[in-house]
Amino acid sequence: MKKKVINDPVYGFIKLQGDLIFEVIEHPFFQRLRRIKQLGIADYVYPGALHTRFHHALGASHLMKITLDSLREKGHDITEVEYESTILAILLHDIGHGPLSHALEYTLLSGVKHERISSLLIHRLNKELNGRLSTTIQIFEGSYHKNFLHQLVSSQLDIDRLDYLNRDSFFTGVTEGTVGAERIIKMFDVVGNQLVVEEKGIYSVENFLNSRRLMYWQVYFHKTSISAEAIIIQAIKRAKELLSTGYQVYVTKALEPFFKREITEQCFIDELTLLEAFTKLDDNDIWACIKDWQYSGDRVLNLLSNALLDRRLFKTIIFSEAPDQDQQDNLRCDIERKLGFEPGESKYLCVSGVISNEAYVSTKNNIMILNKNGSLQDIADASDLPNIKSLSKIVKKYYLCHFKVK
Amino acid sequence: MKKKVINDPVYGFIKLQGDLIFEVIEHPFFQRLRRIKQLGIADYVYPGALHTRFHHALGASHLMKITLDSLREKGHDITEVEYESTILAILLHDIGHGPLSHALEYTLLSGVKHERISSLLIHRLNKELNGRLSTTIQIFEGSYHKNFLHQLVSSQLDIDRLDYLNRDSFFTGVTEGTVGAERIIKMFDVVGNQLVVEEKGIYSVENFLNSRRLMYWQVYFHKTSISAEAIIIQAIKRAKELLSTGYQVYVTKALEPFFKREITEQCFIDELTLLEAFTKLDDNDIWACIKDWQYSGDRVLNLLSNALLDRRLFKTIIFSEAPDQDQQDNLRCDIERKLGFEPGESKYLCVSGVISNEAYVSTKNNIMILNKNGSLQDIADASDLPNIKSLSKIVKKYYLCHFKVK
Amino acid sequence: MKKKVINDPVYGFIKLQGDLIFEVIEHPFFQRLRRIKQLGIADYVYPGALHTRFHHALGASHLMKITLDSLREKGHDITEVEYESTILAILLHDIGHGPLSHALEYTLLSGVKHERISSLLIHRLNKELNGRLSTTIQIFEGSYHKNFLHQLVSSQLDIDRLDYLNRDSFFTGVTEGTVGAERIIKMFDVVGNQLVVEEKGIYSVENFLNSRRLMYWQVYFHKTSISAEAIIIQAIKRAKELLSTGYQVYVTKALEPFFKREITEQCFIDELTLLEAFTKLDDNDIWACIKDWQYSGDRVLNLLSNALLDRRLFKTIIFSEAPDQDQQDNLRCDIERKLGFEPGESKYLCVSGVISNEAYVSTKNNIMILNKNGSLQDIADASDLPNIKSLSKIVKKYYLCHFKVK
Amino acid sequence: MKKKVINDPVYGFIKLQGDLIFEVIEHPFFQRLRRIKQLGIADYVYPGALHTRFHHALGASHLMKITLDSLREKGHDITEVEYESTILAILLHDIGHGPLSHALEYTLLSGVKHERISSLLIHRLNKELNGRLSTTIQIFEGSYHKNFLHQLVSSQLDIDRLDYLNRDSFFTGVTEGTVGAERIIKMFDVVGNQLVVEEKGIYSVENFLNSRRLMYWQVYFHKTSISAEAIIIQAIKRAKELLSTGYQVYVTKALEPFFKREITEQCFIDELTLLEAFTKLDDNDIWACIKDWQYSGDRVLNLLSNALLDRRLFKTIIFSEAPDQDQQDNLRCDIERKLGFEPGESKYLCVSGVISNEAYVSTKNNIMILNKNGSLQDIADASDLPNIKSLSKIVKKYYLCHFKVK
Repeated sequence: MKKKVINDPVYGFIKLQGDLIFEVIEHPFFQRLRRIKQLGIADYVYPGALHTRFHHALGASHLMKITLDSLREKGHDITEVEYESTILAILLHDIGHGPLSHALEYTLLSGVKHERISSLLIHRLNKELNGRLSTTIQIFEGSYHKNFLHQLVSSQLDIDRLDYLNRDSFFTGVTEGTVGAERIIKMFDVVGNQLVVEEKGIYSVENFLNSRRLMYWQVYFHKTSISAEAIIIQAIKRAKELLSTGYQVYVTKALEPFFKREITEQCFIDELTLLEAFTKLDDNDIWACIKDWQYSGDRVLNLLSNALLDRRLFKTIIFSEAPDQDQQDNLRCDIERKLGFEPGESKYLCVSGVISNEAYVSTKNNIMILNKNGSLQDIADASDLPNIKSLSKIVKKYYLCHFKVK
Repeated sequence: MKKKVINDPVYGFIKLQGDLIFEVIEHPFFQRLRRIKQLGIADYVYPGALHTRFHHALGASHLMKITLDSLREKGHDITEVEYESTILAILLHDIGHGPLSHALEYTLLSGVKHERISSLLIHRLNKELNGRLSTTIQIFEGSYHKNFLHQLVSSQLDIDRLDYLNRDSFFTGVTEGTVGAERIIKMFDVVGNQLVVEEKGIYSVENFLNSRRLMYWQVYFHKTSISAEAIIIQAIKRAKELLSTGYQVYVTKALEPFFKREITEQCFIDELTLLEAFTKLDDNDIWACIKDWQYSGDRVLNLLSNALLDRRLFKTIIFSEAPDQDQQDNLRCDIERKLGFEPGESKYLCVSGVISNEAYVSTKNNIMILNKNGSLQDIADASDLPNIKSLSKIVKKYYLCHFKVK
Repeated sequence: MKKKVINDPVYGFIKLQGDLIFEVIEHPFFQRLRRIKQLGIADYVYPGALHTRFHHALGASHLMKITLDSLREKGHDITEVEYESTILAILLHDIGHGPLSHALEYTLLSGVKHERISSLLIHRLNKELNGRLSTTIQIFEGSYHKNFLHQLVSSQLDIDRLDYLNRDSFFTGVTEGTVGAERIIKMFDVVGNQLVVEEKGIYSVENFLNSRRLMYWQVYFHKTSISAEAIIIQAIKRAKELLSTGYQVYVTKALEPFFKREITEQCFIDELTLLEAFTKLDDNDIWACIKDWQYSGDRVLNLLSNALLDRRLFKTIIFSEAPDQDQQDNLRCDIERKLGFEPGESKYLCVSGVISNEAYVSTKNNIMILNKNGSLQDIADASDLPNIKSLSKIVKKYYLCHFKVK
Repeated sequence: MKKKVINDPVYGFIKLQGDLIFEVIEHPFFQRLRRIKQLGIADYVYPGALHTRFHHALGASHLMKITLDSLREKGHDITEVEYESTILAILLHDIGHGPLSHALEYTLLSGVKHERISSLLIHRLNKELNGRLSTTIQIFEGSYHKNFLHQLVSSQLDIDRLDYLNRDSFFTGVTEGTVGAERIIKMFDVVGNQLVVEEKGIYSVENFLNSRRLMYWQVYFHKTSISAEAIIIQAIKRAKELLSTGYQVYVTKALEPFFKREITEQCFIDELTLLEAFTKLDDNDIWACIKDWQYSGDRVLNLLSNALLDRRLFKTIIFSEAPDQDQQDNLRCDIERKLGFEPGESKYLCVSGVISNEAYVSTKNNIMILNKNGSLQDIADASDLPNIKSLSKIVKKYYLCHFKVK
């Protein structure tokens, strides 16, 4: 039986074994994840945050293995096929991420979520592997009868989140984001095919929810990240617009099919080659463009690319209430007046948006606690944790990002 | 100028300098803290948790140094004397801890808090050092006009807590307890002599409050700790009772003055030698007794000591509501009936109590946030943190600890 | 099947399972190791170094489990009994350590090594457990036919050393002492019942030898440790001498049998109760004595105890060549002359000794490397490692420790 | 005074201050280092090893600051200008690294070392900054009278190495590579303008030399790294050759000047714009090419690019003696025969080379130890370290990398 031993600074040595798992890891679709960073451009704030989706997928698979071993030890029946398929499901859960997602998830494609593409790609792989991923697909998509296996892959307290919080915390250096993954895993149990957490694990779960919330504000929604992401998004949009008007703009070969027209989910179904084309994309395509566009004759594209490369980012203002449209208008006017841009150009140099953070969604797929007396309870109702309820409040913030006119 | 460089696994190299600081560290009063563990008997649950008050005091002094340097950089005037005195205040803040405190704080002495003894000992040291600790005393006791220096030593978000949370988390291995001490320290500022935290530090402060709460339940109030502490307390009480009846019980020379009679705060004032006697006490005195008592002719003392040494601890039951007196009575009856103990004995083998945890006290000494617009705000009112309010609810639990009758 | 999950700051969660293993851990003989520190008085230099033999034994068992799993995966047949027995052998390998060993190994007993007592105690336990430790004994003592199991417990590259180097490095904060335990374990293989290391692991083995050497000089033979150990040894010797002359000296009940007369290996065989008496000993006995002796009427015992408690240690001088006897004589004279001690007393206040460090013993039990072509080779002969040979040179140093006369 | 606080997972918070330092960090030349990975393609083996020259430069500056503070405390006079200039020298020491150096150092340019380009770029920056880097240049180039400042930047035991060993060790997860940077820094001293190490630091220095050696074999010269580097080098060479014959091959705008002809050191002096052109290069340029070349009509370029992207690397064989030319010839023949390549093509698919590792160069710039008696000694002659001498032996290995014909 083939195996891989990987040296992971987060967990030490990771060992993955099994011919099918080995085959999937070796596959170009999976190797592509080496070239997609987990946190896009977070290294503009946290210079160590360069880890990849590849690394996260391996780490999550390692945690999944520990989890399944622990559940088996608690007496839950997990067949060999289920065991391997659940590991494969977490290994492949991010296979559909495109370059610099989430930043570009809605810019490169038209409303196609990465989960959807993951699903398409796993189906595609399944064909190539003669149906050996069929159970994996069921677990990934939630149609498998042992629902807890799906919940381990995707729920409000899943292995995906346990790994990425610890990994992002490790590589950013934001130590407060650390979650007690091993402890939570030991507390996982199964009741009636549903994943539950033993009562004595509630403080670790609470800590997990709080850590996730903290990482959102401290890392994922950091002002500087928002600013750098905004610049990339505007650059892509500008390039697309220029191309649509016949203006010559360089794009990499791999990106071409995605710049020529709007790609919707239906496109992937209608054109089989499009999915294949998607698997050629990675972060390097965006950076190759940005680097080329620094020489662009278009002032906007030129400015945006150079701003990004030289890290002269947009100024970002955060508001608790939606800011007045006037404010944005004034800023655009200023840019036009002082720098001589047209209105059709200045809209790329001053953008607004909203970010929201819901630490715990109390209305569905609740995290269930298994009390010592055997009863189940939503964690938000656990007597000791008055604050989980308040974590389920959605916190919204508004931002305005604009080029700094000196 | 003398200095000490200490290798601290938590922070790397710690450097403390200054002749007075050096002198205090070398003093037998301070060296005594080497023999007092930070977490008493927590190693019964977390075998790595053997770190001492000595180590904590050094670590906290290191953090204090960084804090004062950072405040100076922000333009706050801190004189050399204030600088050194604040470091000394945190270095000495735990000097009054007795053996196995907090377990024995109310058993060995009669309602004398360790803070009070710390104060007495610092005054005592001040005499010996010809008044060089006068500013330290003012800062420690809160009478110094720059109140933020006192708040750094003792408040709801002080250097003491920042160090002990990180240190306890490190040595127990409960990684979720980690707080972003360095980040919080960088966010400290001073407004009108009061310590405040810059707005962008609120998530770290929230994480700090949550971590502290988690450490309480996971470590400080762990069932096994409660049980081991209960046994030690009962052993001390039993020994005191036996001695009062003239029964021969070994106590170490250092403990003798504290076993002969009840020691109240007034005693320390009336008898100057008593304070000196206190400085001879450390954890070893308790363990020397326990080890001797394993041979005791008194069945109760014998049972308690052996239970502790061989880790055959009491069974602990936790309740959210105060348990019925009947339950305790029944357990005692059982012990009497099956093991032939007298009622006067069984009370040592079945005890009850209450533990409570208030993560944030919102009624006084609130943690103040400095908003970007310059206004101050109680952290519990900061808009993004709906859950701080809920953290200020006191959570109470009740326990019943009893010898397991087979 | 019973199991224990322990939170180890060094490795994360450690899981040990099996009824027999559980029973052994719960046994008072093993629980006693909670009260014996791994590094004796090294916390006088490295304040975090308070970890116990108990913790080390658990950590080593964890590494052993990983090792056996890895060897099984490589196709080596290890039966269930062998698996459990090897874990038990490492769990029990230090069971014979006395208080403050190695400092007191030759002071408390007369030339009885701790390995010998470990062996006696395992035999004693085996009786109690109805022979269930018989294979463990064979593995521990080296008489089992699969010699690699013994080599994993005790050899120049064993699990004992892998754990203690990482653990000591962790708790002292001497990060350079870290060894790649996991990597080495993955490289272990078995050829003809002998433990070997795969060729590509040679750099990790070399690093292991270097780390061990570094830890010797930096930690185990640190000047301050030598000094504190010397004081304790002299205090014990002085107490024994005083007792032999009829002078009243306190010793704890547990220590009494070991202070009344010289205890040799034969004594343990002749008197069955002596072994039982030994299992009552731990570090607390020594500290209880030291604390009592600080009030002793004997000037020497008084001085030594107070020096230790207040950390006013002996001055230590290190020499590469054996120092002249004159130097020691002069120092003693000085102590006698200036402080009024008798020659019979001053010998306790100025002592000399030798420390030696042999990183690799090339003459026996060599570490064997398995080359890719299948041949075996002593690591000292591996072509890439010219310096292993030089590591097998014994380095000797001489010390002189004496009370500082002001 | 401007400052930067950076969250570094290796050291925690790093603080750099000073207007000039701030200006240099913000400069596009320095920001470019964000896009150059420290270890090129080591993430093909160690998936976490994605850290950049930017991060290394900041980390090294942090260590430099600590070092200079420590030397000042020991009484050595270091002026404000020297202090800042030495930090700037280490900050800028790698500014001349090109994409995927060291892999491409001799492929992209003709025998121009990165140190030389660093020097040219610092001079260029100095002009822009009106001579404020003049002292930095002297320190960097070794012409400043206080030679120890240069030695801290570049010598056999410099801050550069201390940082990269710890950083590479951290991000690869090869924990054995950790060096005691803080301890060594504390042991640095200056005698007669030369950097020396206090005697008690020799074990840490020895550990440093051993760690460096281990990292060479385990990481920098890892078989898989050699293989991936070989493929990139061959791809670049093939592309250059094709271009020289007029065959159409995509290269990025930034790379164009370096593909059109051979660039020697003289070119940089003759053409001022060439240096500017160099500052546009980074890792993304290589990856953009590789990604484009996967579609190339040239079979060789096509094969090499796809091999790299899909991680189907060359097979690497390591020899202790130079392998026979026959072996390589046979492998090439095999490739030609079975896959139908021409000899002019097969040479790109089967290459050989040599790697060598000299842990300590004993012939020049020796690491000097300051003995307690004040005398200086080459570390290789220090009596306790018989193995340093053996570390100064150059170890050579030979490799043969070739496309695997199935």
